[in-house]
Amino acid sequence: MSTLRLALGQINPTVGDLVGNAALCLNVVTQAHSQGAHVVVLPEMIITGYPVEDLALRASFQRSSVLTVTTLATDLKSAGLGNVVVVVGYLDGDGSGKPQNCAAVIFDGRVVARYAKHHLPNYGVFDEYRYFHPGNESLVVRVHGIDIAVAICEDLWQDGGPVARVRDNKAGLLVVLNGSPYERDKDDVRLELVSRRAREANATLAYVNMVGGQDELVFDGDSIIVNPAGDVLARGEQFVDDLVIVDLDLPEAGNNTTLATGEAVVIVNAQSQPLPTLESRDVKVRLNDEAEVYAALVVGLRDYITKNGFKSVLFGLSGGIDSAFVAALSCDAIGAKNVYGMSMPSAYSSEHSIADAFDLAQRCGLNIRSVPIAPMVDAYLASLGLTGLAEENLQARVRGTAVMGVSNQEGHLVLATGNKSELSVGYSTIYGDAVGGFAPIKDLPKTDVWKLSRWRNEQARLAGQTEPIPVSSINKEPSAELRPGQMDTDSLPDYEVLDQILNMYVERDSSLDDIVAAGFDRALVSKILALTDHAEYKRRQYPPGTKVSGKAFGRDRRLPMTTKWSE
Amino acid sequence: MSTLRLALGQINPTVGDLVGNAALCLNVVTQAHSQGAHVVVLPEMIITGYPVEDLALRASFQRSSVLTVTTLATDLKSAGLGNVVVVVGYLDGDGSGKPQNCAAVIFDGRVVARYAKHHLPNYGVFDEYRYFHPGNESLVVRVHGIDIAVAICEDLWQDGGPVARVRDNKAGLLVVLNGSPYERDKDDVRLELVSRRAREANATLAYVNMVGGQDELVFDGDSIIVNPAGDVLARGEQFVDDLVIVDLDLPEAGNNTTLATGEAVVIVNAQSQPLPTLESRDVKVRLNDEAEVYAALVVGLRDYITKNGFKSVLFGLSGGIDSAFVAALSCDAIGAKNVYGMSMPSAYSSEHSIADAFDLAQRCGLNIRSVPIAPMVDAYLASLGLTGLAEENLQARVRGTAVMGVSNQEGHLVLATGNKSELSVGYSTIYGDAVGGFAPIKDLPKTDVWKLSRWRNEQARLAGQTEPIPVSSINKEPSAELRPGQMDTDSLPDYEVLDQILNMYVERDSSLDDIVAAGFDRALVSKILALTDHAEYKRRQYPPGTKVSGKAFGRDRRLPMTTKWSE
Repeated sequence: MSTLRLALGQINPTVGDLVGNAALCLNVVTQAHSQGAHVVVLPEMIITGYPVEDLALRASFQRSSVLTVTTLATDLKSAGLGNVVVVVGYLDGDGSGKPQNCAAVIFDGRVVARYAKHHLPNYGVFDEYRYFHPGNESLVVRVHGIDIAVAICEDLWQDGGPVARVRDNKAGLLVVLNGSPYERDKDDVRLELVSRRAREANATLAYVNMVGGQDELVFDGDSIIVNPAGDVLARGEQFVDDLVIVDLDLPEAGNNTTLATGEAVVIVNAQSQPLPTLESRDVKVRLNDEAEVYAALVVGLRDYITKNGFKSVLFGLSGGIDSAFVAALSCDAIGAKNVYGMSMPSAYSSEHSIADAFDLAQRCGLNIRSVPIAPMVDAYLASLGLTGLAEENLQARVRGTAVMGVSNQEGHLVLATGNKSELSVGYSTIYGDAVGGFAPIKDLPKTDVWKLSRWRNEQARLAGQTEPIPVSSINKEPSAELRPGQMDTDSLPDYEVLDQILNMYVERDSSLDDIVAAGFDRALVSKILALTDHAEYKRRQYPPGTKVSGKAFGRDRRLPMTTKWSE
Repeated sequence: MSTLRLALGQINPTVGDLVGNAALCLNVVTQAHSQGAHVVVLPEMIITGYPVEDLALRASFQRSSVLTVTTLATDLKSAGLGNVVVVVGYLDGDGSGKPQNCAAVIFDGRVVARYAKHHLPNYGVFDEYRYFHPGNESLVVRVHGIDIAVAICEDLWQDGGPVARVRDNKAGLLVVLNGSPYERDKDDVRLELVSRRAREANATLAYVNMVGGQDELVFDGDSIIVNPAGDVLARGEQFVDDLVIVDLDLPEAGNNTTLATGEAVVIVNAQSQPLPTLESRDVKVRLNDEAEVYAALVVGLRDYITKNGFKSVLFGLSGGIDSAFVAALSCDAIGAKNVYGMSMPSAYSSEHSIADAFDLAQRCGLNIRSVPIAPMVDAYLASLGLTGLAEENLQARVRGTAVMGVSNQEGHLVLATGNKSELSVGYSTIYGDAVGGFAPIKDLPKTDVWKLSRWRNEQARLAGQTEPIPVSSINKEPSAELRPGQMDTDSLPDYEVLDQILNMYVERDSSLDDIVAAGFDRALVSKILALTDHAEYKRRQYPPGTKVSGKAFGRDRRLPMTTKWSE
């Protein structure tokens, strides 16, 4: 047996920021080297960020990605890190120009080997058949006499894929580079998979994942190292940058330089250094369910703001629970002094709503201003004579236009505060409350908005801080306040019922009959399904400010715009 | 040799309207039978419509598609059409529930054979790897002793695919079912391909394509029949329903019932009927370039309106060329009495603009009303104190809100009138002029808006009709009229230059250096490329009313929202 000090760099790239991402890589290798790491593994596509979508198809982008990796190699050597073996994900071509999702092995100022991902996921949020050409070769790198096999993300999830070859090739360590987005409860699935594949490969397995928000996705880190029996040796923290370092006792490879699969082993003549003491093996505590979802929301929001170059956010504060929860999230993401709320009361706004909005602002310490909408609404009504639903929607659109005007003037990113339940059934005004560049709770059902609001207040209580969300915003009956005495239950069932039906239909693709069989009223289910399909088509006809597809928290619904199919 | 009367049904389905699409099929088979057709071939996925996107993944949708085909088979028999061999595209499963893009052969009230598409396109507007599982078997059906091979769309485009097997299998006729969207000049490419494949297959080749608009796509029909030498025997009309019928003299197959590729020949015992006289071979005249693009725009707009259940459209009429051209298109699509325009002058609107809008309305016979925006704009300015660009955008948003209010009240579909040039560089206000459920000229560069406006007026002159578009709208210098004396050229180069740069960057993926090498000023190109990338990101941050991706007329740009990459 021989000892290898392995580091996993769990870092947060930005799509397209090749220079910035390479600088992150250089920084994390520097840190790992200062702790004696022999090998540093970085996530999938860390040089380009992930997902790159159609950028992968641009020849100039592919060339720049390759150039960035070769420059990183020379920069590492110049910084005295040439003796560290670095495995880094990037975009390359297959020789004929077809893009590939690749890993480069860097040593002594050069790229000494590369691996192209075999299995390309093409479901849910993934479209890799569109972007990448699959690889089919195995890669094993011999460092200090230890054979290290390389695989990328989906390669691990497919039975009989490159992992099966690891056993044939008798590698002692399998490193897997990942860009694996957060889903609820995925950490448990991931650990089970990593342990099972380690046993199948009969190898120690190191799984490194990126972290941070990128558009619709949030990456949760959760990097893992397990031994060949599948037992956890180390685990990274969730949702934050982390550097996971362990000493691994691994079998020596012998002198055979050809793999069972036919490829030549890549020999890396890294010098073995005396190892400084390593503190302890590192298994970070898991977040509980509420903390995990809340962290995902905060990270997704914060990174969307900062990666888009904004410093502040702006949204309407109605006094209701959705905007109150978004306010708490925003303050946690970028600090209350960068959060701007607008109270925009109408003739139908209740006194308690206005009071709750100001109470919230005071509790959070955010900026608030009041802009009554009557003068604008009256001007439209005098010119256009709108009534009924058109008048209700007008109020929401006046608020949307007011918020966008202030955003244009002052430079804040506008947030849309709608939740998944109301957006799913179309209980929302296009170009009204749907206005915004990012909708932080669009993937969160209403019942979870309440649950997480109570949880966030409880965290504050436990820490001896002011509860951010007014209790009356949590407890009041939901109302859009677009006409006198209006309640959400005028149009919708209780959210407890609605969310169960939506979960079955949207997340689990259950049919009408399935949902009725689960104990719900057929007429009600029919109505909700029709509303959901209609809302999907309406969204396609008049897309709101942000996508509503539940990528992080549920299934993507990509439906044609003009379909007549309804169930 | 034996004579086969073959009919191609070039028809217009609606995605998800299974019952309606099956009725279209029954209708066209009835027509074909009345003219003595032995075999009727219908387009790819005609039962479900195309593209079905994630509907393909719904088990209940797959079941309904299969049920619709079996019902169509019994309905055909009940209607006395059991002796006609009908080949029809639909969604089926591979046995384990994975969706497949299939063709069914119907005869005597039953599905007697099925074929699953081998090659799944996954580029540009296609995402078939996401939706379908590929087939790998050949299908040859023997009718009247003639062997007919079946393939679907992309199977024809791939070298060495099922078409290569047709020669091995010695089929006399290859029928290809297509859902092939219109692109500029694609008819020439398509004809060249069909002729080449016929020679390779040494078979007569019949190519049937659907027609009509479906969301972002327009299908142009253009069904083609060529002999084994590649000479055109018949060709369908572009952009309209058509039934192409020919008598083909084809070689008899002999008695071998096993194909070279191993599959059994499917024998269909259709009775040969005495053939009624067939008028003549049918080679429809091609449209010229302007007529082709204009037809695509009219069909795309008309089908979007009607398939979404609208009867009328509404948009702002500024007196400028874009809204004037959209007005002419709309009147050609659904008739002037269903077209509603709103003149919404501000303090910065010129007298001639207002006059041009009313002149247009009179020339076209469409409905127009005037809603000056000063009262609404003044109310916002008094409440919010906006200046500069925020004030400019406010005017556009007040117009957007006014148009949406009238749409809500009266039920019209709102059209956004922006062209591809200004949308590409972000010369547009989100939630302002970008408001709308469909943007009919979003894929048309400004220089083409002028060119087609002149062409449309010329068509009217030649027909002795009133020219729909005021000459002053065509000839005036473009201005958004959001501040005194504002001209597009304050912010942008001449559109002749802009459109050439955009064509290279957006359609052809040329790099900055490529475009400079073509003779454009580096500083100008840099600016335009930065504007284009920024507009793409802004659109993702605040999506406008409709997608801007140039699907019918150019390349789809799917870029990440927060990328830092720019070139």
